[in-house]
Amino acid sequence: MRVILVGFGNLGRGLSRVLVQKASFLHRSHGLITRVVAVVDEFGSVVDEKGLNLNELLKVAEKKGTVVAYKGGKRGKLALKVIDDVEADVVYDLTPTNIKTGEPGLTHIKRAMREGKHVITSNKGPLVVAFRELDSLAKRCGVEFRYSASVGGAIPVVGLAKKLLAGNEIHEIRGVLNGTTNYILTRMSKEGAPFEVVLREAKELGIAEKDPTLDIEGIDTACKITILANSLLGMNARLKEVKRAGIARVRPEAIRLAQEAGYTIKLIGIAKRGSLEVGPKLVPLGHPLAVGGTLNAVTFKLDLAREISITGFGAGPKETSSSLLGDLIDIHRTLGG
Amino acid sequence: MRVILVGFGNLGRGLSRVLVQKASFLHRSHGLITRVVAVVDEFGSVVDEKGLNLNELLKVAEKKGTVVAYKGGKRGKLALKVIDDVEADVVYDLTPTNIKTGEPGLTHIKRAMREGKHVITSNKGPLVVAFRELDSLAKRCGVEFRYSASVGGAIPVVGLAKKLLAGNEIHEIRGVLNGTTNYILTRMSKEGAPFEVVLREAKELGIAEKDPTLDIEGIDTACKITILANSLLGMNARLKEVKRAGIARVRPEAIRLAQEAGYTIKLIGIAKRGSLEVGPKLVPLGHPLAVGGTLNAVTFKLDLAREISITGFGAGPKETSSSLLGDLIDIHRTLGG
Repeated sequence: MRVILVGFGNLGRGLSRVLVQKASFLHRSHGLITRVVAVVDEFGSVVDEKGLNLNELLKVAEKKGTVVAYKGGKRGKLALKVIDDVEADVVYDLTPTNIKTGEPGLTHIKRAMREGKHVITSNKGPLVVAFRELDSLAKRCGVEFRYSASVGGAIPVVGLAKKLLAGNEIHEIRGVLNGTTNYILTRMSKEGAPFEVVLREAKELGIAEKDPTLDIEGIDTACKITILANSLLGMNARLKEVKRAGIARVRPEAIRLAQEAGYTIKLIGIAKRGSLEVGPKLVPLGHPLAVGGTLNAVTFKLDLAREISITGFGAGPKETSSSLLGDLIDIHRTLGG
Repeated sequence: MRVILVGFGNLGRGLSRVLVQKASFLHRSHGLITRVVAVVDEFGSVVDEKGLNLNELLKVAEKKGTVVAYKGGKRGKLALKVIDDVEADVVYDLTPTNIKTGEPGLTHIKRAMREGKHVITSNKGPLVVAFRELDSLAKRCGVEFRYSASVGGAIPVVGLAKKLLAGNEIHEIRGVLNGTTNYILTRMSKEGAPFEVVLREAKELGIAEKDPTLDIEGIDTACKITILANSLLGMNARLKEVKRAGIARVRPEAIRLAQEAGYTIKLIGIAKRGSLEVGPKLVPLGHPLAVGGTLNAVTFKLDLAREISITGFGAGPKETSSSLLGDLIDIHRTLGG
């Protein structure tokens, strides 16, 4: 498979490292040989239709901060040109998320599909802004479209429902889908410390961003629940339709009272047909959604299996590469590889 | 898809009910039309190449205790004759498990494969006795072979690893794979009651069988861990290689001490390359394997995703039909449906 990587931040580099480390495993176990023929970052691009030496490229990009410094690298806004001109099977869009416009990922993805290239993305923006459009475009263009890494990081949430629980009707999806808020609530619950104190420490540890609004106000969770609703419940939901509350007003006393009654408080996203919601909710201790630390978890309520839950790491470049690589293997298999 | 059901006990009937109820869902969502062309039970068989009326067949079989009583039903040991003679795409073997001989499922499965029919089974026996042989035979015969329901009931354990975590190397598999022992340990832990008392009550409730040896001595768990090791770790393990301890010697005091230290005790099956084990183990409270009641759970330790856990119902005819039907949809898709 000839691959173009658009976006070479933590995820793009993490995936590249994994592609190098696992080249022989992928060949041996899946008959999959990957060749990264172009890498685009915010400063420019580098192309080698014979396949870039990712090890060398990673070294240069980490030292100089861009792939432009690599031999043959070119400066400029070159993503669309590369997507158009370079022959490839799959385009990875791993650019930063913009949940208002979906850009630049949205344009990359549409262009790639129109060029007949399969698309894998981790980018919530395009999916939140234009899920149905992208889903239809992929079908019209006859290309595969995968976005496992956009929800749940390493947890294959979308694939679990679409591929393995396909005989079920999904009544409801509930998820702990944001590691930062889960970390904060877990520490509040263990230490009885107030929200503001734990948030400050989370920032110092790099677990919360400097501006943590998207996380603590539940917007990131709302994006993910919108994607799941559209992808798995066949909805055409918009982000603004999600009824949303964050965790800033959760008090340690409330968590303590919950614990005394056998519960904990988690920021939960809930999708069912006609109703999307994010907010702090009571979860029984011992339930799979009562996961601690930065873990994520999703519970499906189903007509046959009743309840299936899956838990894992919702972020991290290596962890997320499990999903990014899983999508590539899945496309390879779908194409008969 | 033309389907033969061999075995018409709880699972066969449960699946049949689901096939009736979900006929339009399966057609609409997956383009799958199923036609059950033959049903075999321990007393005989009934065949209709145009497709049996499952609703009527279920009524008769439940009233009379066998499909022989249905119009056109024939008495006798007819499984192999039906597998040979009736044109069909898929044979379900849903016969009772015999972990020593694998029979009668083993013979059914081999015959179906040699006849060029795809096979779906819930039967641990053939998989424990002859996994590698069946896996190779399926490949040689060019047929699909699925056994999701054999481990974890409704939980798609095998598919999760094979399809969705395919980019990972699996370092270890740990599972709570037996609902009866999990129920007993959960009640011992909640009530401080001794093993013998809880076991007696579990028998009265029908949660434990009259002869609960296979469950409480960890043999059922050992079977499942053997299947997972062979299927997912590429091993050629035999049941007798599993180091095994049951739960009869777990004392309420041990559970109480564990709880004081933040743990619970579960009967855990563990598979890693070169080492298979079943026994009571400490599990941290809050870990996905610390599930209560009759729930099952499996944790994969992986090189990329680190740890992914999945939880759900490990038994029940309706729940298990989620896996049996999922396998059928998967074969339909694999064949390009």
